[in-house]
Amino acid sequence: MSDPVPTFGPRVVTVPPGEDRERLVCPDCGYIAYDNPKIVVGSVALWQDRILLCRRAIQPRIGYWTLPAGYMELGETSQDGAAREAWEEAGARLAVGPLLAVYNIPRISQVQLIYLARLTSPDIAAGPESQEVALFAWDDIPWTDLAFPSVDWALREYEVRRDLIHAGQPFAPATNPVDGL
Amino acid sequence: MSDPVPTFGPRVVTVPPGEDRERLVCPDCGYIAYDNPKIVVGSVALWQDRILLCRRAIQPRIGYWTLPAGYMELGETSQDGAAREAWEEAGARLAVGPLLAVYNIPRISQVQLIYLARLTSPDIAAGPESQEVALFAWDDIPWTDLAFPSVDWALREYEVRRDLIHAGQPFAPATNPVDGL
Repeated sequence: MSDPVPTFGPRVVTVPPGEDRERLVCPDCGYIAYDNPKIVVGSVALWQDRILLCRRAIQPRIGYWTLPAGYMELGETSQDGAAREAWEEAGARLAVGPLLAVYNIPRISQVQLIYLARLTSPDIAAGPESQEVALFAWDDIPWTDLAFPSVDWALREYEVRRDLIHAGQPFAPATNPVDGL
Repeated sequence: MSDPVPTFGPRVVTVPPGEDRERLVCPDCGYIAYDNPKIVVGSVALWQDRILLCRRAIQPRIGYWTLPAGYMELGETSQDGAAREAWEEAGARLAVGPLLAVYNIPRISQVQLIYLARLTSPDIAAGPESQEVALFAWDDIPWTDLAFPSVDWALREYEVRRDLIHAGQPFAPATNPVDGL
């Protein structure tokens, strides 16, 4: 997974004048790449009692099942980003609801905002980043073939809140499990 | 507020091969700057019934009052970032609690994660980005001298949840007010 040493663009780690920490700078032109944590937006998306999952057609974790999720883009809200990812990866149209979980993965400087959502129809179709998409009943979720720990976490947090959710009650979003960092 | 046209670094807007949207590319070396939404982390931080605010010593909105908040850095959690900002801007040590609000500002591609926090002591001191810091009773908050709309929003969302908060009950975080985008 290690990248080759770049030979162009920002590639020198240094503390720029007036700054208090190291940044990646281009030694050819002086451009400073302010690298910031990235936001992943996704959803536990329901059709009736079933949950939308996507089998990944891309690395990492190709062939494993994940929630529809991906990097938030410029100029969109986090809710719109979660809906866009479900459309791109699973051809699913979502009504995005409350925040189900906020996960921090500081090792890779990632914040995941996982919403609870409902499909507005059961029509789904694998997009280019998915081998297959499906609506799983709870007892059929492929627990041993999930792509990432946070997929497992978010599904279980949905289960914990299911009665509140179906009663339309407000709930606090989950954070990382204690042993999850 | 418009920036001068850059003469170095990524400065040409184009769709790179294999991509589906425009990115900023350096025409000299081909480096692609993947510009992502940025995360602001901050807090409504309480000492007893009083709320920590900081009078800004920097642009924009110099001289106006704000919550301790700033850009999340690489390698930290959002909670740790909120605590770091309160330390840097106000010399305040925080115990960071539940998420109070998630605000989307898509015009500037910003997501704000505002936590509820408690100061672990009343000792505060203005950092380099603050002209002044203070603990305000609710009735003394300088409403007409707040720096940003989301400061006003977050304070009012705290007020709405105050009984739940003081009772230790869970609550859903706020999102943008309907007219707030």
